[in-house]
Amino acid sequence: MNHIVALLQAELGSAVSVDPVELDACRLDKSGHRSESAPLAIVNAESIEQVQATMRIATATGTPVVVRGAGTGLAGAAIASQGEIVLSTLRMTRILEISEDDELAVVEPGIINAQLNAALEPKGLWFAPDPASRAISTVGGNIATNAGGLLCAKYGVTREAVLGLKIVLADGRLMSLGHRTVKGVTGLDLVGLLIGSEGTLGVIVEATVKLRRLPTGVPTTIGAYFATVEEAARAASVITASGLRPAIMELLDPRAMRWIAEYLGVDARAESFLLVQTDGEGAATEAKGALDVIRSLGGDATITTDTAEANRLLALRRSFHPAMESRGTVLIEDVCVPRSALPAMFHAIDEIADRFGVTIATVAHAGDGNLHPNFVFDDSAGDGVPEVIWEAAHEMFLTALRLGGTLTGEHGVGLLKKRWLRGELGDDQVELQRDIKRVFDPSGILNPGKLFSVEEEHSVLTE
Amino acid sequence: MNHIVALLQAELGSAVSVDPVELDACRLDKSGHRSESAPLAIVNAESIEQVQATMRIATATGTPVVVRGAGTGLAGAAIASQGEIVLSTLRMTRILEISEDDELAVVEPGIINAQLNAALEPKGLWFAPDPASRAISTVGGNIATNAGGLLCAKYGVTREAVLGLKIVLADGRLMSLGHRTVKGVTGLDLVGLLIGSEGTLGVIVEATVKLRRLPTGVPTTIGAYFATVEEAARAASVITASGLRPAIMELLDPRAMRWIAEYLGVDARAESFLLVQTDGEGAATEAKGALDVIRSLGGDATITTDTAEANRLLALRRSFHPAMESRGTVLIEDVCVPRSALPAMFHAIDEIADRFGVTIATVAHAGDGNLHPNFVFDDSAGDGVPEVIWEAAHEMFLTALRLGGTLTGEHGVGLLKKRWLRGELGDDQVELQRDIKRVFDPSGILNPGKLFSVEEEHSVLTE
Repeated sequence: MNHIVALLQAELGSAVSVDPVELDACRLDKSGHRSESAPLAIVNAESIEQVQATMRIATATGTPVVVRGAGTGLAGAAIASQGEIVLSTLRMTRILEISEDDELAVVEPGIINAQLNAALEPKGLWFAPDPASRAISTVGGNIATNAGGLLCAKYGVTREAVLGLKIVLADGRLMSLGHRTVKGVTGLDLVGLLIGSEGTLGVIVEATVKLRRLPTGVPTTIGAYFATVEEAARAASVITASGLRPAIMELLDPRAMRWIAEYLGVDARAESFLLVQTDGEGAATEAKGALDVIRSLGGDATITTDTAEANRLLALRRSFHPAMESRGTVLIEDVCVPRSALPAMFHAIDEIADRFGVTIATVAHAGDGNLHPNFVFDDSAGDGVPEVIWEAAHEMFLTALRLGGTLTGEHGVGLLKKRWLRGELGDDQVELQRDIKRVFDPSGILNPGKLFSVEEEHSVLTE
Repeated sequence: MNHIVALLQAELGSAVSVDPVELDACRLDKSGHRSESAPLAIVNAESIEQVQATMRIATATGTPVVVRGAGTGLAGAAIASQGEIVLSTLRMTRILEISEDDELAVVEPGIINAQLNAALEPKGLWFAPDPASRAISTVGGNIATNAGGLLCAKYGVTREAVLGLKIVLADGRLMSLGHRTVKGVTGLDLVGLLIGSEGTLGVIVEATVKLRRLPTGVPTTIGAYFATVEEAARAASVITASGLRPAIMELLDPRAMRWIAEYLGVDARAESFLLVQTDGEGAATEAKGALDVIRSLGGDATITTDTAEANRLLALRRSFHPAMESRGTVLIEDVCVPRSALPAMFHAIDEIADRFGVTIATVAHAGDGNLHPNFVFDDSAGDGVPEVIWEAAHEMFLTALRLGGTLTGEHGVGLLKKRWLRGELGDDQVELQRDIKRVFDPSGILNPGKLFSVEEEHSVLTE
């Protein structure tokens, strides 16, 4: 047996698994990307001490570690490969504290977002980050990727919902970052630095998260069809620029709507669709404002406060991903542009699809300017993403950057976007970021080859 | 003439000043602390290029640089001393862009917060960070300290209002951090790291800030007297825990109220005073909710939507600082505790004042748990803060930490709190933070001796 596995087993006993099925599952996340071979072992940590023990062994032996929650990532950041230890936090699911007075919870990283919210709901509280994966993704994973979701325009991204973190460093030391208070400026903001760091700086073993009161009032929901996607995008931009803050504002393009209608077997039009939901005490007033904008810009809208009817409209959006998957293999992209550039970005996506002869259906968190163009292709041969799709994606990334946008609004860089990292950040900043990583992880064992490229990671190890 | 000054003048001409009066002014900020001697020179930079040139000369000659805005800091972070170059951004005041559609502005760092807001107001927009110094402090300074203020509980701290930064590194290189988009997760969050870094990592030369729509509706204002400060603090905690989000919720202790009444010559009671203002469309409903809490907890309250009457109530709070200064020399402290610990913290402050025989008057941003105990003392001899006050402050910091709080909610560490930094962060984290500083500033020329202690800074220079 491998001596590293032996060391892990001697220290961690049954927390260590080398079951081939379990190891094989760690080669994947929800991006569709698959690593070339299975990792060395999985440590299913149940405590901070076990995480520390794992990291001490990893440091002593120079073994790379991939921290993994539920494996729902979309950029390959938690995919493990040959020679790596997977450090799973999935068994660290305890809620250590819920403070109603201070509107915070202290949780272990492996708790599922929806499970935390199920525990909070009877108290009228809510952990607002709501990635589409919230039913299956962990709070630790949400933090490691700075997850977004449908409600960000009004309720913020994960960054805004984390007060403090406990992390285990590469060498096994435990460190507390941040505060229990809502404000605090003692020293550099390392909590913010850890959020979205994709497992490259430390292992998140505990989080103090900020809670909100559940919104009151009756939500109002609008579904509106537009003749073109640019018109729908313009309506979304104008709604936000009018000072309205819908909780949800999602835009689906005609192809997405056609496939969703067929998938659900419902009678929805193959036109651009804008879904708006307002909540809180001002829900009705805000919805009226949004409706006025939509109709003035040519939208054909229905508005409802009826729960069943609202759910029928929301189901169209919620069925986006299964509807896409029913059509083939999917590469989900994630560019984000300033809201005013949404129409231009939609236009560019259509043009790129035509030019490269690829099939793209797009949904956008329109309140944020965050688009998810879904490349759908036939991968029955199992060859992975065709090069022509990466060429089209490359054009899309360049367009997003030219429009003042970014490569990734909420999914992260992981494996899939690191090729483009220097294009957005520039060489100097990538070097600076790598130097910061080196401070946390001098021997380069934390998620090597993710975020930054493998070659550079190797140069760290050998320099 | 000093050769460093000669180099600066050769490159930067009239932007360099060695006027003794100007140099002497840089020995102070609003903390009352004064450095031991005047700096070498001031560069009044008017452009990014001049900042870069200054930093190149500083790096080439190993000269420390103190970046300074309006000098309104309360922790000594922008105080300069012998041998240092002051790099002033006060002349970099341009608004480069206001985008109504994308709700952002691009500004130079030297613009005064209130001047930016004056330019935004006609467009119905607003840069929300509102330190009490907003009429005189710069946006760059707000960012460098992650400034808070009266409106944070509802509208967030400066961190939540910055999308992107341009910084000049210690060696003169220019780097763009962050995004124009409201979301973005490409790489590590260096914007967050720079915010609140107190001039130790880089020179902020441009900021892309997030704007809000000005709140609509008629604000409702409540002023309430309580028999004890603990009761007033409890009312504030319960208001927040009830899900209400006043724009302003300030708590003044009896001594503060007595001095304010005498300073203004008005008939205010020397009791604990809770000032609440709600805004937005839900202002009246929220105020009603807050009023119910206040009265149920024994508060004697008045409520008004009349502007003159509201201003009369707000004037009590606004006169806090001048009223304190009319009584002697003031050391303004800045601890922050979880909101539920506000009553306990107020109680402890009273006990500490009694035990050490020092005079403290306290105002708190009660919605945040952020207290400003003001130590008032006689410094007619010009000896600075008496040791007994630091001893009392030391006890106060320990109490705040014991209650789950932090040394500084919004003023920063600067010179005045670095003695206590390790007490809050621990040795390991201080070392990690210093290693991060070293990545940005390998020769330790950016604001040495601030945030971290001088001895450690020297060790950087000599190791």
